Amino acid sequence: MTRKWRRHHMIHEILQEPSAVESTLLNLDEKLHSESIDLKGFDICYLTGSGSSYHACIAGQYAISSFVGAISSSIPASEFASWIPPHAGRRALTIAVSQSGESIDVLNAAKAAIENKFTVLAISNTAGSALSRIAHHTLLTSAGREKAVTATKTYVCQLAALYLLALEMKAQREGVTASLRRLRHQLLISRKILERTLEISDEASKKLAERFSGNNLFFVLGSGPNYATALEGTLKLKEAAHVVAEGFASREFLHGPMQLIGEGTPIVTVMTPDEHELLSGLISSLVRFGAPVVWIGENLTLSMRKDVEPIELSSGFHKAFTPMAYVLPLQLFAYYSSVARGLNPDKPDKLSKVVK
Amino acid sequence: MTRKWRRHHMIHEILQEPSAVESTLLNLDEKLHSESIDLKGFDICYLTGSGSSYHACIAGQYAISSFVGAISSSIPASEFASWIPPHAGRRALTIAVSQSGESIDVLNAAKAAIENKFTVLAISNTAGSALSRIAHHTLLTSAGREKAVTATKTYVCQLAALYLLALEMKAQREGVTASLRRLRHQLLISRKILERTLEISDEASKKLAERFSGNNLFFVLGSGPNYATALEGTLKLKEAAHVVAEGFASREFLHGPMQLIGEGTPIVTVMTPDEHELLSGLISSLVRFGAPVVWIGENLTLSMRKDVEPIELSSGFHKAFTPMAYVLPLQLFAYYSSVARGLNPDKPDKLSKVVK
Repeated sequence: MTRKWRRHHMIHEILQEPSAVESTLLNLDEKLHSESIDLKGFDICYLTGSGSSYHACIAGQYAISSFVGAISSSIPASEFASWIPPHAGRRALTIAVSQSGESIDVLNAAKAAIENKFTVLAISNTAGSALSRIAHHTLLTSAGREKAVTATKTYVCQLAALYLLALEMKAQREGVTASLRRLRHQLLISRKILERTLEISDEASKKLAERFSGNNLFFVLGSGPNYATALEGTLKLKEAAHVVAEGFASREFLHGPMQLIGEGTPIVTVMTPDEHELLSGLISSLVRFGAPVVWIGENLTLSMRKDVEPIELSSGFHKAFTPMAYVLPLQLFAYYSSVARGLNPDKPDKLSKVVK
Repeated sequence: MTRKWRRHHMIHEILQEPSAVESTLLNLDEKLHSESIDLKGFDICYLTGSGSSYHACIAGQYAISSFVGAISSSIPASEFASWIPPHAGRRALTIAVSQSGESIDVLNAAKAAIENKFTVLAISNTAGSALSRIAHHTLLTSAGREKAVTATKTYVCQLAALYLLALEMKAQREGVTASLRRLRHQLLISRKILERTLEISDEASKKLAERFSGNNLFFVLGSGPNYATALEGTLKLKEAAHVVAEGFASREFLHGPMQLIGEGTPIVTVMTPDEHELLSGLISSLVRFGAPVVWIGENLTLSMRKDVEPIELSSGFHKAFTPMAYVLPLQLFAYYSSVARGLNPDKPDKLSKVVK
């Protein structure tokens, strides 16, 4: 390990992501096999968390909706108690996500769920936390200690845990089919995919961060599961690089926000191959108004290549799993943007690791 | 009517809101009485729309969750087809909201809902639109023609329609109780409340817009139903005043975005009286970091008054109805911010009234 990698916890922790995800998946796969947690008897699944953990919930909701067909809904932890309907009761599963398991908003959300007779399943990186003491079940991620305030490896491990949980729900409801086996296999070997993704995107992310080091307004657009990636990418930019960055569900950008773009406003679009056709018109509009467009995805078509600055990956992931790979160039971009501006990405001065 | 009010459609249309809401409520109240639309047989209610209409969905979701206890979920129209689970079928009601009834994303969402065997109820300001032709039922708002690209009167009319619909759902499920009668009465006389709210907030909003006319970054924070108000307020600021503005569920602001604040970053907080205690710590943090804080709400406590620039209203509204009043000072603030910057609030150059 060179000195460069040691300089900041944030880059060190980004580079640990492939192995942290692997440990998380292996440990949880065993736990889900050995303990029989009933995931069948629910009509609705609520997901709740704050900040990065809330973004993981959004990606988790997509996976549960796609694989299980259960109605699911993500609510920020601080809003949870105000939004849940009073009569859902035992038909509702609440998945409460918190790196520390000590964040006051997540604890309050879990308490509100329990008062409402919902089953609470915690996903946390900390054994014996306050959250796991009140939850009915806990799935522990194996990210190791995260020293940077900015969450990176804990986020992708939360995604991995949520994906495995979604597949377990599918297995309990539909039995173990060949397609489920393929999905599970793809997830369990994702360490390799993440390693390759980091390799591919490291240099490109660094160059773009240097090129845009004078820009102080960014938008990140993502659709479907990568709406989560757009929100998480902008949160990293805010925290580490102290720049203004807002994430949007891609085509929502056309309703108003489009007014703000121009030559000084880089737009990062994150998209899966099936979305290229639907979003090519949006990209043309962005380009017409002069915005530099960075494109993160796979299988870039030739016609789009001329307009965008691509970070082309080759995960081969099922669409629901793509947020785990696509967020990596954005984490790297935020890290290198921080360094290019002479900031300390590990210690944003107005933030703390756990919000009380 | 003085010449001043005639200058821009946007201010003209804001001032028409009380009467537009009154017409909408009276017309729809009669329609809901005369036509018997079945609102009982649903386990889940999806709400969908784009831009301002999506924000109305969020406030509508809060009202339905509060009054009816049904599980409900708002999804941006462009994302709808990707997020709905495949097996909800006839148990699901979809409320599709679109001012024009011609927006391509809302049409696609309604088509996806129909393919999935969901019942579709449209809320639109345009009779005979493409949306109403494919929906099972249509509730027409009575805002009259809206000439400014920036939606104002159509937004509050959408809120009014959604609130009346939520009360009708409650009536069909629980019968007409005394508390329901009180809620309906409060809603039906809301014209007076909105008129008073405009009177109270006009001068204050104008002064603040002039004071902050050199600021180009704003945050608006709101919780519960006024999360919708925060999102809608920032959309108006983007569209009319061309400034960067992001809305947050209030306490989510502590997770990362807090890093961006300082003396040059005005924060507008929108809150109902029951939230003062929970959010006073957040306001103290904002003040400690030097941010000017504008406070929109009712019954401001003395201890908070020293730290904030208040726009104090007195709607007396049930919490679920407050977005209809609390958005008004934000619409005025966006309008006056546009004028103070020498812009034309009616015609943002990169936007069109209907997104194709």
